[in-house]
Amino acid sequence: MVHVALMSYTPDPERTIAAAARVSTSLVGATKLTEKLTPQAVDRLLAQLIASGHFSPFEHASFTFAVEGISRVTSHQLVRHRMASYTQQSQRYVPLKEVNYVTPAAITAKPKLETKYHDVVRGAHHLYLEMLDAGIPAEDARYVLPQATETRLVMTMNARELIHVCSLRLCLRAQWEIVELFERIKAEVERVAPRLGAELKPKCYRLGYCDEAESCGIFPTATQVVGERR
Amino acid sequence: MVHVALMSYTPDPERTIAAAARVSTSLVGATKLTEKLTPQAVDRLLAQLIASGHFSPFEHASFTFAVEGISRVTSHQLVRHRMASYTQQSQRYVPLKEVNYVTPAAITAKPKLETKYHDVVRGAHHLYLEMLDAGIPAEDARYVLPQATETRLVMTMNARELIHVCSLRLCLRAQWEIVELFERIKAEVERVAPRLGAELKPKCYRLGYCDEAESCGIFPTATQVVGERR
Amino acid sequence: MVHVALMSYTPDPERTIAAAARVSTSLVGATKLTEKLTPQAVDRLLAQLIASGHFSPFEHASFTFAVEGISRVTSHQLVRHRMASYTQQSQRYVPLKEVNYVTPAAITAKPKLETKYHDVVRGAHHLYLEMLDAGIPAEDARYVLPQATETRLVMTMNARELIHVCSLRLCLRAQWEIVELFERIKAEVERVAPRLGAELKPKCYRLGYCDEAESCGIFPTATQVVGERR
Amino acid sequence: MVHVALMSYTPDPERTIAAAARVSTSLVGATKLTEKLTPQAVDRLLAQLIASGHFSPFEHASFTFAVEGISRVTSHQLVRHRMASYTQQSQRYVPLKEVNYVTPAAITAKPKLETKYHDVVRGAHHLYLEMLDAGIPAEDARYVLPQATETRLVMTMNARELIHVCSLRLCLRAQWEIVELFERIKAEVERVAPRLGAELKPKCYRLGYCDEAESCGIFPTATQVVGERR
Repeated sequence: MVHVALMSYTPDPERTIAAAARVSTSLVGATKLTEKLTPQAVDRLLAQLIASGHFSPFEHASFTFAVEGISRVTSHQLVRHRMASYTQQSQRYVPLKEVNYVTPAAITAKPKLETKYHDVVRGAHHLYLEMLDAGIPAEDARYVLPQATETRLVMTMNARELIHVCSLRLCLRAQWEIVELFERIKAEVERVAPRLGAELKPKCYRLGYCDEAESCGIFPTATQVVGERR
Repeated sequence: MVHVALMSYTPDPERTIAAAARVSTSLVGATKLTEKLTPQAVDRLLAQLIASGHFSPFEHASFTFAVEGISRVTSHQLVRHRMASYTQQSQRYVPLKEVNYVTPAAITAKPKLETKYHDVVRGAHHLYLEMLDAGIPAEDARYVLPQATETRLVMTMNARELIHVCSLRLCLRAQWEIVELFERIKAEVERVAPRLGAELKPKCYRLGYCDEAESCGIFPTATQVVGERR
Repeated sequence: MVHVALMSYTPDPERTIAAAARVSTSLVGATKLTEKLTPQAVDRLLAQLIASGHFSPFEHASFTFAVEGISRVTSHQLVRHRMASYTQQSQRYVPLKEVNYVTPAAITAKPKLETKYHDVVRGAHHLYLEMLDAGIPAEDARYVLPQATETRLVMTMNARELIHVCSLRLCLRAQWEIVELFERIKAEVERVAPRLGAELKPKCYRLGYCDEAESCGIFPTATQVVGERR
Repeated sequence: MVHVALMSYTPDPERTIAAAARVSTSLVGATKLTEKLTPQAVDRLLAQLIASGHFSPFEHASFTFAVEGISRVTSHQLVRHRMASYTQQSQRYVPLKEVNYVTPAAITAKPKLETKYHDVVRGAHHLYLEMLDAGIPAEDARYVLPQATETRLVMTMNARELIHVCSLRLCLRAQWEIVELFERIKAEVERVAPRLGAELKPKCYRLGYCDEAESCGIFPTATQVVGERR
């Protein structure tokens, strides 16, 4: 079961982004700019940056999340996003005495298969423990563990990359578990930076159309909207 | 069973690196420099760059590998190296009809456990196929597959990062499967760029000592060599 | 005067990208895929990847350029693109005996100012040489050199980043000198990879609208095309 | 005159790094780990990570600096460090009415040359203003400005990269202005994270020897210490 806690983040992230952005077009330094910016000015500036696709100042605010209860399926997908920092629980050094794993809803929906699923996963974990007892190193015993096995990690991502990754991973084409993960990440960001949190959304909301081969229906396809122009 | 094939690479990689490096200290342009560099000059220049830790020109040569037969354990480790490009066989889109998986030598060494290992892995794959037949999407059915399951991918890495990653992954502290992977990668590079291939080696060979808590014995520890100085 | 020469590149770049892309959805390995892909299949695959914004396989092809005759104004802009490798002529180690510099057309258009411009630039270079003669290190003497001073560098960028950077730097909002630089880069890529070269174009051609505050007129603005939707 | 102010940073940076690091070897999640870590445990853990070269957890703490009064010589060097985020005052959009510039000490040491230096720099700035008045765009007029011209920027860098960049830029081989910049950056970090600040030091202090061709004398060369071994 996915669990996300915001461990730490750049204090006053939206003001930091706005002050940094203003440095590029201002004669005044960043320290003064930070003091002078009203919440309204911050809002207006972020909106302009987003509308014109100028995302680089969003790199100045970072968020660190403690992520628990995701499967190794999802952690493998997650770490493919390279503009971020990860520290993950090691299956080489940590023997997993308890069996914690994720069960997809598609499997839960079919009770007979679900029973078999639990049996196979637990059987694998049982053999894992037996191998540990027999002196097989944890790093080797883990080969038998299913990809459903839960892992935990700490992830730091800046706001620019959060916007980018959410544009892909909140899309309905992404797999349900990683969608869930980023919905929780979005909720955590929204708590402390509502303006920024609101920008964590599927790419179609930013593009104004869906650029995938088939649309989920929320937005018309690129062909329908700008087809002849592109 | 790990298999690595060098699919493509920057032609004449060592000369490209040397010509780029010379641009920084020369009045002449890179095109002329490339022509004029003798093989001896290339060798000498690469040796100087390496000795003084000036690795940035090594980024100008890239290598693209087709990697097959590694477990998902190892692909998950591999993609943690972020200064590289990966395209991996998708378990979301490709149903894995055949059961191909890796068996660690530590398990093969204990025949009774090995038999159980094969049974559990095959049992998991059997349930995977049954779930596919029952209409479970491949992306969900795969949760039951063991981490031993084989995957394939294409990886592109530049020479600077190859040197860095090999300094970590050819160390005996790395896990045997990823050591094997990078030994094969090294062999492929050596075939076409022997000077560069020779630089793909554990970090201790470059440092002159082992900076891990315990040494494997090839090099003395940092404490023994420079302990009082650091 | 900007000069760009393609020093080196991943051989058969479009086929390499296509073969890598196919690995993600195929049971067959990359080596076999490379052989089997017809030029038509490569074309079709690249078009699909681009239409749906799946650019990651484009990272497997890299291009190395020898760039000469750009000002330090432009090299400073250029190296802000971080997903690339640069080796630049060092003003610390190379004394610039000759005075080579860029003159913007806006200045050439006003002959009186142009004369003053040449005088000031040459005066600065004259003092630079005088300081070198007096034993001032080149790294310090260069402080007096104008930003117009020419530099040369080697740049390696993969096709994904080339597409991204051209989407920004071929836009008319970019400064003329960096536009010129990327027009020449595009020409070099087109020579050896026409399909890919054609994708090096301003972002509006891909979006179907202009997302800047004001459009240059080639495309209508985002507000006009998808305004109510976003 | 270089001025650095720490605008923002990950709160409690050393504890954040330590908690993240512990996740990799622990059964407990990051949130609990953060609470339980004593200052002594944090210190001990950071020391272990550093001694064995395991720097990745240091990526979880970021620092944002307002930098003012550096020359464009130094900003061009600075932005070559790609694992960081920069927002710089734009010479395209901000007309520089005042003449602010850096004068190297080597020039100040020679009064006659210094007088000429000020004359040439001010003459260039005078022509710059004249061109602005004549309607030349700021982005073109700036070509005449010397590299000594001051700029300001906001930079965000994580602790791992700060350690790495300081290992290069606090070395006496680096140019005096960028050394000064990073000395001030180090001082700012030390103020809020003394343990981490102490790790911002030239690479020789970490290696135990100097790996440059010639040593400044603080440490013996690699050849002297580990010469036969490497």
